[in-house]
Amino acid sequence: MNDVYVVGVGMTPFGKHPDRSAADLAAEAILGALDDAGLRTVDIEAAWVGHVYQGMAMGQRGLGAAGISGLPITNVENACSSGSTAIYEAATALKAGAYDIVLALGVELLSTKFRGALAPDESDIEAQIGLTMPSVYAMRARRHMEQYGTTPRMLAAIASKNKFNASLNPLAQFKKPVTVDEVMAGRLIAEPLHLHECAPVSDGAAAVILVSGKKLSQLGSSRAIRLVASALRSGKLEVGLPDMTVEDLTWRTAEAAYQQAGLGPDDVQMAEVHDCFSIAEATRIEGLKLYPLGEYPARVERGEAGLGGRLPVNMSGGLLGKGHPLGATGVAQVIEIVKQLRGEAKDRQVPGAKVGLAHCRGGKARGVEGTACTVNILTI
Amino acid sequence: MNDVYVVGVGMTPFGKHPDRSAADLAAEAILGALDDAGLRTVDIEAAWVGHVYQGMAMGQRGLGAAGISGLPITNVENACSSGSTAIYEAATALKAGAYDIVLALGVELLSTKFRGALAPDESDIEAQIGLTMPSVYAMRARRHMEQYGTTPRMLAAIASKNKFNASLNPLAQFKKPVTVDEVMAGRLIAEPLHLHECAPVSDGAAAVILVSGKKLSQLGSSRAIRLVASALRSGKLEVGLPDMTVEDLTWRTAEAAYQQAGLGPDDVQMAEVHDCFSIAEATRIEGLKLYPLGEYPARVERGEAGLGGRLPVNMSGGLLGKGHPLGATGVAQVIEIVKQLRGEAKDRQVPGAKVGLAHCRGGKARGVEGTACTVNILTI
Repeated sequence: MNDVYVVGVGMTPFGKHPDRSAADLAAEAILGALDDAGLRTVDIEAAWVGHVYQGMAMGQRGLGAAGISGLPITNVENACSSGSTAIYEAATALKAGAYDIVLALGVELLSTKFRGALAPDESDIEAQIGLTMPSVYAMRARRHMEQYGTTPRMLAAIASKNKFNASLNPLAQFKKPVTVDEVMAGRLIAEPLHLHECAPVSDGAAAVILVSGKKLSQLGSSRAIRLVASALRSGKLEVGLPDMTVEDLTWRTAEAAYQQAGLGPDDVQMAEVHDCFSIAEATRIEGLKLYPLGEYPARVERGEAGLGGRLPVNMSGGLLGKGHPLGATGVAQVIEIVKQLRGEAKDRQVPGAKVGLAHCRGGKARGVEGTACTVNILTI
Repeated sequence: MNDVYVVGVGMTPFGKHPDRSAADLAAEAILGALDDAGLRTVDIEAAWVGHVYQGMAMGQRGLGAAGISGLPITNVENACSSGSTAIYEAATALKAGAYDIVLALGVELLSTKFRGALAPDESDIEAQIGLTMPSVYAMRARRHMEQYGTTPRMLAAIASKNKFNASLNPLAQFKKPVTVDEVMAGRLIAEPLHLHECAPVSDGAAAVILVSGKKLSQLGSSRAIRLVASALRSGKLEVGLPDMTVEDLTWRTAEAAYQQAGLGPDDVQMAEVHDCFSIAEATRIEGLKLYPLGEYPARVERGEAGLGGRLPVNMSGGLLGKGHPLGATGVAQVIEIVKQLRGEAKDRQVPGAKVGLAHCRGGKARGVEGTACTVNILTI
């Protein structure tokens, strides 16, 4: 199988763009990635496009707006893991030797589709009767508190860290740092989660250009970053009531990725993880086995996950700070890792990092409808 | 790259199933395909699921209903080519050597979502103001008539042929043969297209199990059919007004597939093509270069495309006769070719055929939003 490299990245600012179309956002991200790679629109041989709510043929419309048409384009959906699934599919095709230069795009325009929070999917009967995402994650937070002595302030520290990182990211939705006290003083959305601990409604697009090792040696890009692992797994049918604080899906996906990469949790030097809520960052990081179960929130409070800490997490600001345009999220996570590994992350730069991991998880919180999880690992 | 084989096929009856869920339909098709292959649920390593309107994580719900969970599942959407795109992605992963046994599923439940015809996509501004599918295809029919002397009776003969074939297919939506006179006596939907010349609203699911050549030699199935080509292309940005009767997209896709297979139009012995309207079968067949431009409708009237004809087309009944549950359509086409090549098509059997082609085309009728086209070629 062929090696896979990222040679170009581009994204729009994340935030509210009600005056723009999803295709317009997509085009900006694509043209930015091409510019970054030093490639032209005609160089793209195939594309995978992740989104959830943008209707039929989003990819064809988005690429068309960038002046790219005629090639094989596949739209993919895996809830909040849609963008990272696009990367997984693009990488699979490069490994097959089917193409040498491909595009993975994620895009979502939510602000014109939902007033306030996203409505649950019509197939999601539990959510229809009240078990919405904030309530699910609030229960997980309560359980984490009960089981490990986690405090609301520790969870607030996760949100504060991510909002601070976002304040250093010119493309983030939120530009203002928020202290732990300010998080705690915020409105409760679902106890113990306050407003700043819940991901916002966002619009945006993000694109990466991936090439085969063979093509890379022709292009000779010195800024290429290797995608050493790309794994996708789905939720499992469960019997009985599992421990809500344990992310079996995240671990099964990470295990596959670690194996592909020939690396383990100890090798990971920074991570972008799916912090749709403050508690989610904790259960993801623990699910990835980057910290023992129950330990992460206390470590954040001690500064270990900050930009200068032992293991920086969500350097970009994460979903809480950078924003969460569903389809674009997984691609933007990989972009942050690429920028960090290139040494181009400016005020957010983690010095000397050589291995970074991006984790996404979409769908319902549990069971077979815990839909999809992806783990991408990148190295210099 | 590895060879790809179909070792199991399964589908629900196509028709109206308002009392069933999409996941339930999916499970029936999956379990049928597993049974046909002599494999178990745990043998499936990864899955791709094509659908358009079934909401988030359809694949995870559908496989879950069949008792399959935990594996990598990717939902794909390419309008009416969604199911065949699932096959294309599954084949790509097998070629990459990523897996040895994978599932491609297509599913759609439309009867409970739309009252009457499908509403245009909200991004489709032209359709919103009246340029719906029947009007687009009616214009193409008029142009074909003007340019080549095609008559309404010739187009009606296409519909009559497909309804007859459907009457021999126990899984088809329509079981009653319809004469050319009966087609002509039907209600005009968009002149010159009558009711029987327009694909119905349908529910259904279809699944195929694909394996690598390596796995096939372990399994030793004598009924395996080789997928020698799987191509996907998208619509092109167009300048000026192209000839509406010429399917550039179909030809570009077919050309790629013929090249992969090392075959040409003369080698094709039967075809399932995307006859969403009677005229569509003509422009597809001509776009595939199976007949010279303008000649197909007259040849159908002379019986050349019938089950005993020179080149049988839509032996299954096609979209017009078998039904058109969008996501399931492309998978069901491949299933018909597989059954024919195995010699298991019973009353519809085309004797001695060794090469069959399946063609899907989805999205708007023209340009970049002509979204997606797939061509799969299978051989004994």
